[in-house]
Amino acid sequence: MIDQRLLPEEVVYREYRDAAGVAEAIRTMVVRGAPAIGAAAAYGLAAQAAHSHYATVEEMLEELEDAARVLGAARPTAVNLSWAIARVLDACKAARYATPDALRAAVLAEAHAIAAAEVAANRQIGLNALPLIPQKAVFIHHCNTGPLATVDIGTALGVIATAHQHGREVFVYVDETRPRLQGARLTAWELGQMGIPYAVIVDGASGHIMRTRHVDLVVVGGDRVAANGDVANKVGTYNLALAAHAHGVPFYSVVPTSTIDLSIATGDEIPIEEREADEVTCIGNQRITPAGTPVVNPAFDVTPARYITAIITEAGVAYPPFEESLAGMMQR
Amino acid sequence: MIDQRLLPEEVVYREYRDAAGVAEAIRTMVVRGAPAIGAAAAYGLAAQAAHSHYATVEEMLEELEDAARVLGAARPTAVNLSWAIARVLDACKAARYATPDALRAAVLAEAHAIAAAEVAANRQIGLNALPLIPQKAVFIHHCNTGPLATVDIGTALGVIATAHQHGREVFVYVDETRPRLQGARLTAWELGQMGIPYAVIVDGASGHIMRTRHVDLVVVGGDRVAANGDVANKVGTYNLALAAHAHGVPFYSVVPTSTIDLSIATGDEIPIEEREADEVTCIGNQRITPAGTPVVNPAFDVTPARYITAIITEAGVAYPPFEESLAGMMQR
Repeated sequence: MIDQRLLPEEVVYREYRDAAGVAEAIRTMVVRGAPAIGAAAAYGLAAQAAHSHYATVEEMLEELEDAARVLGAARPTAVNLSWAIARVLDACKAARYATPDALRAAVLAEAHAIAAAEVAANRQIGLNALPLIPQKAVFIHHCNTGPLATVDIGTALGVIATAHQHGREVFVYVDETRPRLQGARLTAWELGQMGIPYAVIVDGASGHIMRTRHVDLVVVGGDRVAANGDVANKVGTYNLALAAHAHGVPFYSVVPTSTIDLSIATGDEIPIEEREADEVTCIGNQRITPAGTPVVNPAFDVTPARYITAIITEAGVAYPPFEESLAGMMQR
Repeated sequence: MIDQRLLPEEVVYREYRDAAGVAEAIRTMVVRGAPAIGAAAAYGLAAQAAHSHYATVEEMLEELEDAARVLGAARPTAVNLSWAIARVLDACKAARYATPDALRAAVLAEAHAIAAAEVAANRQIGLNALPLIPQKAVFIHHCNTGPLATVDIGTALGVIATAHQHGREVFVYVDETRPRLQGARLTAWELGQMGIPYAVIVDGASGHIMRTRHVDLVVVGGDRVAANGDVANKVGTYNLALAAHAHGVPFYSVVPTSTIDLSIATGDEIPIEEREADEVTCIGNQRITPAGTPVVNPAFDVTPARYITAIITEAGVAYPPFEESLAGMMQR
């Protein structure tokens, strides 16, 4: 994995040989982004199986179930993590493999399948969004939803990239995305590599930008979408959605269907991770607050469905009322 | 002056002997905050007069008018700057002083009068706000509006301090206030010194805090208030106001009347300063974006009057319709 904490200054790859290592990489955000941590967890199970010392399928299945618990506890908000883990475990248990080697191969195959499905989803998401993008399109984008956060071209950033590839004239205002600055560090880096023009803004400037300049649409990703269309995403998304609403700017959450969790009715049920104070009080090695400053640091927020114009997935574009449109989409 | 750029790590005092030095201190934000830069500019004129080499009142008045132009150009948004400069110059010209020494004394006396008026305004603002503060009061506060930004206990922070002094049980969520982190650096420091409990949040978290925790009111300062009640203030204020509006949380702009500019009809006429990219791309000596990252960095935004519950001043509390209430207040 690329260690995303060090970008854009350094490109460092890290290797993990078991699920505990991958869980720690997810927890400490070496890898982040809902689709990416789902795929990473699946490969974490594959690594655990590949290096397992157990001689029987039963023992290895128990080992994988333990590993799944460790991986699943790494971060609470994105549903992709538990979704991918459950998908791998279900596949392992359903097939009743005869030998440990067969089980090893099956776990790896399922991880590959999850990654391949995310790649296909990214591509289709970009195409599904195209009719919504004007010929000249000014976006505001929050957090990071590109290749680093997913498995391919990305979700919200994939929409921008696809529009760019199809000849749309795009410009992106990039929310820097405090506290971890995924926009300033990662999205700016990815847009630069794609040759897409952009400007970084502080998160608090989005309303001013909409009030004083032309903005066509806001695109964000999502970490978990409830059955009613409430979207948990990186903290700051909700304030951005309120600004878009005040200015009549369309606001799209762009997610693979693996991010949709019909088992929960509303966003109030989504667990919101609270992270360490030093994400806010320090930037790199630099302290920015007085010593001992108390902090409240929610990593995510919930944007109520009423502020969301549509949810763009590989299975189509869901419009309100989301209870119906999302349920219909997930049945297909 | 305390060099506010170095707080809270270091407390360094800087001395200036002429208006150009004070103008540079204002431009580079050694001193910032609308009331503070007004008073600083008045003292900049006093320093210029004190060290003047001219032998006649006429020559010294010309020198002061040149100095006033330099000071007035230091920053565009806060009206207190041009207000204080005009007040000093008008006093100098109106009185027809007979000697340079008399003029020197008059400039200094006018600067003292401006500072004393701000002190009195701060105190009265805090008292005027008291009836609006519940016994247990949870605030969200943006930027820095305390002693460092004013001449005494502050405007919005003065309201909090006064409530605390009067036995209210207060707690403050402190917006860190990107890009220059006045909340994380300065407001946290001032609240700590006052013994008022607080927690720093990233600017994007305010909506989530209102959605998931109890918040009684939002208080911010102001850099210029238009006749219709539109308020220019530190960037991020508008997004915070939209979140407060969505949650029915009262939103107060707290300013001395020196910040109210009845000469302009609406906030659209307020010049919004755009500052250097490195305020966003670097924190201290640490670069946080890829090299060459384009940035849009408005230092302020305008919150439309319809999102403002009331404007609290030393002359009273103005409620909508602000055209009438502000005009009435300024006539008294």
